[in-house]
Order: sequence, then structure tokens, then C-alpha cells
Amino acid sequence: MMNSNSIKPLEGGCSVAAGFQFSGIHCGIKKRRDDLALIVADESATVAGMFTSNQVKAPPVRYCQRLVAEGHSARAVVINSGNANACTGVEGMNDAVEMARLVAEGVGCEPEEVFVSSTGVIGPRLPMAALRSGIPLGISELASGASASDSAAHAILTTDTCMKTCAYQVELSNGTVHIGGMAKGSGMIAPDLVGPAGTPPLPHATTLAYLLTDAVIGNPELQGLLHSAMNQSFNCITVDSDTSTNDTVLLLASGASGVNLNDADDVALFAEALRRGSLDLALKVVKDGEGAQRLIEVRVSGARSEADARAVARTVAESPLVKTAFCAGEPNWGRFLMAVGRSGVALVEEHLTVSVNDLEVVRAGMAADHCPDHLRKEMIRDEVLLSIDLGEPQYATSTVWTCDLSEEYVRINGSYLT
Amino acid sequence: MMNSNSIKPLEGGCSVAAGFQFSGIHCGIKKRRDDLALIVADESATVAGMFTSNQVKAPPVRYCQRLVAEGHSARAVVINSGNANACTGVEGMNDAVEMARLVAEGVGCEPEEVFVSSTGVIGPRLPMAALRSGIPLGISELASGASASDSAAHAILTTDTCMKTCAYQVELSNGTVHIGGMAKGSGMIAPDLVGPAGTPPLPHATTLAYLLTDAVIGNPELQGLLHSAMNQSFNCITVDSDTSTNDTVLLLASGASGVNLNDADDVALFAEALRRGSLDLALKVVKDGEGAQRLIEVRVSGARSEADARAVARTVAESPLVKTAFCAGEPNWGRFLMAVGRSGVALVEEHLTVSVNDLEVVRAGMAADHCPDHLRKEMIRDEVLLSIDLGEPQYATSTVWTCDLSEEYVRINGSYLT
Repeated sequence: MMNSNSIKPLEGGCSVAAGFQFSGIHCGIKKRRDDLALIVADESATVAGMFTSNQVKAPPVRYCQRLVAEGHSARAVVINSGNANACTGVEGMNDAVEMARLVAEGVGCEPEEVFVSSTGVIGPRLPMAALRSGIPLGISELASGASASDSAAHAILTTDTCMKTCAYQVELSNGTVHIGGMAKGSGMIAPDLVGPAGTPPLPHATTLAYLLTDAVIGNPELQGLLHSAMNQSFNCITVDSDTSTNDTVLLLASGASGVNLNDADDVALFAEALRRGSLDLALKVVKDGEGAQRLIEVRVSGARSEADARAVARTVAESPLVKTAFCAGEPNWGRFLMAVGRSGVALVEEHLTVSVNDLEVVRAGMAADHCPDHLRKEMIRDEVLLSIDLGEPQYATSTVWTCDLSEEYVRINGSYLT
Repeated sequence: MMNSNSIKPLEGGCSVAAGFQFSGIHCGIKKRRDDLALIVADESATVAGMFTSNQVKAPPVRYCQRLVAEGHSARAVVINSGNANACTGVEGMNDAVEMARLVAEGVGCEPEEVFVSSTGVIGPRLPMAALRSGIPLGISELASGASASDSAAHAILTTDTCMKTCAYQVELSNGTVHIGGMAKGSGMIAPDLVGPAGTPPLPHATTLAYLLTDAVIGNPELQGLLHSAMNQSFNCITVDSDTSTNDTVLLLASGASGVNLNDADDVALFAEALRRGSLDLALKVVKDGEGAQRLIEVRVSGARSEADARAVARTVAESPLVKTAFCAGEPNWGRFLMAVGRSGVALVEEHLTVSVNDLEVVRAGMAADHCPDHLRKEMIRDEVLLSIDLGEPQYATSTVWTCDLSEEYVRINGSYLT
């Protein structure tokens, strides 16, 4: 049986995974802040990837999808912020390929072992001169340790207000392995990640995340582990419903620990640690959503199917009237029922129950006995649990995390370029 | 053939339709503003209705659906604002029925000839004492003419900043008929109206609208005419994606002109006038959307099917990042492609063309040669046409109207009750 005492949180972000080096520098895409990050494995690592389901895909996304689908290993990941290299056509693809080649030359590997991500404004060509001088500089600064991995984690940010990392240690039957991660994302956040071959999406910023482990894991096991972790983390968050053209999550396994997943228990433990790390990152993305003041967990239960539960949770989590209500603690619970009712899921109004944290506000589809001031206080906590039970006997459940919609979100996005 | 010179716009709102009287008064649901409207037909009128597809339906919606489904005629419509009588259970239904009975007693008709609508906050019981004294007062003030119909059109408003009416005259083969209308709606606006039996919705506030005509039209012809008009007007608008629990549109035909729809040309003319009147009202609702500064027409062409075109248009019209871009004229056209791409519709990125008014901003999926300042100027006009061509040979089209998302929307909805 799985012993979750075997999973311990650590400090140090990506650096806890042995076998990787990092750097984060300013190459000149942004005016001042760092805009180029590198992750380089000491030896070839196995790699899994999941990518946006948006039909408009940035060239670096298409490039990485191809590498994963062809089964290449990974020596390096290069990520620029400030420019998404999206809607840039053949020239944009040439730029992504050149980024990979520049890294490969510096590191001494095949270009097909270099993965590329971009995030920032959609449309303009990448300033390749900045990357041609920046990539060698980034390579010269590669180092192991938390300071270096933090530099990389900072360099991938755009409108984010803080760095997002995670780190876990997992005791497996044959030894200890580590999982570290970094992510960015603040707006255009509604990841709906699918595998490299475009496997059909589950029901629904750029979200970028890089998960590293020193465990020994081959493909397709690694891809399966990533898929499962994403469907319990990044694919359950939304800031603004707007799925980006650039969403990319990569999982690299260096094998530097020499420890493999020996049996089903090891697999379950590793999967659980990967889920926790992924959820850590995903929730940090929502908490740092553009203009967000609070994290809202929308937990739907009592549905006829998981798909129904998910549709209700997502509709509520995306409803502008629900999200603005949480902005200032407007105790207007009727909006929760409005959003539940417009989800397209068949339901019986009289069976609905809704609670905010421990406060029941709707019973049998009508107002439960509660005080609006009490509801307001519950709604403006830093973390809020909105529980919705549909009252069906099948009791299927689903959870989506979102944030409030504030005037600041409008301010940020009304003047992103200016 | 249809001669559209036969359709003339008029002033006077609902009052242009002969055979109806109106009043709008303050009964005490709201603090100061008028909150009770009456429309009373001199003789029984035929009636058609369409209602919200939200699974959570306010008692007055369920009540009116039943009356329409049972084929009752209409002598009166009573509408209160300030309280939606939604999520109020059996007692809420009793309150709706009592409103009808109070009107029936005053007017001298059967309760089943009185239709009831409510709009306002969801959850609380109606203050029936206010309605018991207000309804007789409203009946005593009934009058014909534009002043009376304007009073009614004002009394149905909530967060609206202006009255919304339309009026048309139609020359049919046997004589002249009139169509007048009033509507309200500002937030919780994404009507997805269906027939009384819950006919399957087309792809997607409270929106309330009342259309009156003095033509002689029986059922089910009247229901068919309303259905067609709604699918070309109210079912093509969205302010905030949030379909209300109370959306109701009624079409009453008094027959007071003595003129019927004599042939297919008459039907086509009347249908066209009804579509224009309905679209007038629907666009007034969007223009007065909470916090809205401009009307945005999202016109999608070159799709494989109308359903595809509609899915793309609706996704773009509901995208927070698109809507905030139009708030201050942020020339970030990449967001248009992001939203097109996340609509779930299969497409070829390289075939996409996008224009704002006459300015082409995307050609072959990439930036067309244009100046960001020029784009900004086009984006901040009072009315903006966003044209998106998917480049498929089937060339199916669809249009959805929306408004920008401003800080004011958040302010209004962060403090609606307070």
C-alpha cells in the first residue's frame, strides 16, 4: 500500500532533481527583466510533454509536439519570455528551430534534443539577434543549485507577480528520488493539455511548467504519469477561460538517482508526488492570476457522471458574475445557482445544496438560513471552498480551481502592450 | 417578392400596436424607482413565448411556460423589477400565481390569461404586500399612448441606464399593422431562449422583452414567428455569458387592426419587421450592457457549418481577453486568434483572416501589414465590426453581438446588493 509519509516536501524548486543545470538571464526581449531560461541535463533525459488544445498553436509548441511524438530524448529546454512566437508562420518555426540549434551547439548535443518554449505577446517575430547573443551567455552561466534554478524560474515569468516552484522527495523501494518544478502563468489561463499526438482533450495563458526528476523512468510510462498528473492539476484550473496558443508542460527524467520505479507501489507513490507537485504549481498559477485576490475551489458532488460534475464546476468557475461576486464578497448566492443551471447539465433545482466553506447557503434549491454578513466574511477569505451538491444518487464529483475577477484584471489586460 | 419599403420605423414603442394599454408605477420593491409594469389588452390576444434554457427557472418562467404550452390567450402581462422571484420554491410559485390573480380580478379576466415576469435579485421572496397594493394602483393608471407605454418600459429596468423600445409599421396586402416592443437587460445577459416545451436550444441576465402587434395572427404561427425572430436577435447577443434564470420574451397579437397575414409575402414582411424590432431591442441591451462602452459585432464567415461559425463567434464574443482588449483599444490582435483557436472548431491556422472594421489585421494566420495606432482607433469606435474568416470553402456564417469588458462591469457586479 502507498505510504504517503514517503513523500516529503522540500525547498529548492527544480534544483532538487539531480542531473540538471540552470540559468536565467536578460537577453533583451523585455526591457529590463530576465527573459531567457535554460534547463540542461548532464546526460540525455527521457521526456514527456503535454500541450495546448488550442487549434492555433505557436511554432515552439508544434516543434516540441513533434519531438515528443518522435520519441527524442532531451538534453536541454530553452524558454524565452516577452514574446510568444505565435501566429508567426514558417519564419516563426525557423526561429524556434534556430533557438534549438544555438543551444545544441553550445551544449554539444543534437538539435532534436533541445526543447523550446516561448511566452509573451502573440504576433511579432522573435528578436533573434537578442537570442543569438543571449543563448551563449545563458549557457556560460549554467549551474546547479537553487540559486540557478530560481534564476531560471524567474526568467520565464510575464505578468506573474511571483516565482512558482515546487519540490518533493519520494522514498521508493530501491532508494530516494526527487521531483522539482517551475511554472509561469497569470493570464490567458485555462489549460486544456493534450498529448503530442493531439489525443482528445478532456472537457477543458500561457501556462508553462517544467517538471524534473532524477528517477529512472522510460517512455511511454513517463508520458502516462504526466498525463495523469495534468488531468488532476493544470487541466482543473482557470483564470479567465482563455486557453493559450502556447501552453506547454514538459517532464524530464534524468535518471541521475539510479533509482527506478520497481513495482506498482513505487509507481503509485511517484504518481502521487508528481500530482502534488503539479497541483502546487497549478494553484500557485491561479493564486497569482491577473488581478486575483483569492483562490476559489469549486467542488461539485452528487452528479450523474464525472463529465456532468466537471461541466458544472467549470461553468461556475468561469462565470463572470460568480467571479465578480467573490471580488468584494458580494453575498449574492443566486449567481451560484444561475451558473449551475446554465451549465447544460440536466438537474433538479430542488435537489441543489450549496455551501461556502462551512456555511450552508442553499438547501433544496432555496436560501438556507444564513446571514449575508456571515456569507460575505466567508467569501473574502484568501482561500474559499464553494461546494455544490447536485443531489443525484450516482454521486460523481469534480473540482475546478479559479480566482475572483477584479477591476485589476481589466486594468492589466486593457493595457498589456501599452 | 418582399418589398422592404413596406416596413417603416416609428416612434412610440409598444403604444404603436393598437388594442393595448399600459402603466408603470412604484409599488415598493425598490426604494425609489418604478418597479411594476402592466400591459393589458382590450380583448384577449394570442400569445407566443420563449424562455430561458437555464435549468434553474424562476417560478414566473415556469408559470408562463405552462400557460403558453396549454394554449391560453393573454389579456395582461404583469412585470415587477427589483426581485427575480427565483429559487423561491413552492412559495415563489404561489406568489407568481397570486400576482396573476390580482391582475385578473382588477382587469376582469381569467387568471390563466395573465402572464407574469420578474427580474432582480435571485433568492428572496417577493414582498407581496407591495404587490397587493401596487397592482390595483397600476390597473387604475392604465392608459394607451406613448407616455403610458414608456412608463411601463421604464418600470421593468434594473441596472439598465436607459429605456429600450422599438416600433415598426408594416404595409401588408390587406392593410397596415404595427409592431411595438420594450425590453430590459444589462447584466446576466446571454439569452438562449427556447419554446415553452423546452425545444432543444440552439448553441447558446435577465433579458425580458415584450413584443406587441395589432395584426391578426393565430397560433402556432405566432410561436413560429417569435422563434425565428429570437434566433436572429436575442439568441445572438452576450454581455457576460451568464444566461439568467428569468429570461422571458412574449409576443402578443391583439388583432385590433383587423388585418391578417394573407399570403406568404405578408408572412415574410411581418417576419422581417419582427426580426428588425427584436434586433433593435437586443442591440440596445448589448449597448447598455453593464459597464459597456461599445457594441462589437463578431461576424464569422468561411466556416464548414453554421454551428462551427456560431461556436467561433460565441467563443470570441465571450473571451475576457478579447473583451478587455476592446475596453481601452488594446491593439493585441493575437487574442482574436487565441479565442478562435480555443473554440473547439477544427480549422487551419494559415487560412485565417481577421479585420476590424475595414482594417485587415490578420492574413493567412499572421499579422497583416497594419499600424497598431490605426487598429487602436478602429477598436475604440462606438460600434466595431470584428470580421473573422476561417477560409473553408463551405462559407457558412454566423454573427454574435457583444460589448467590451470594463472595470465598471466589475464595480457594478462586485456591489450589486450593497
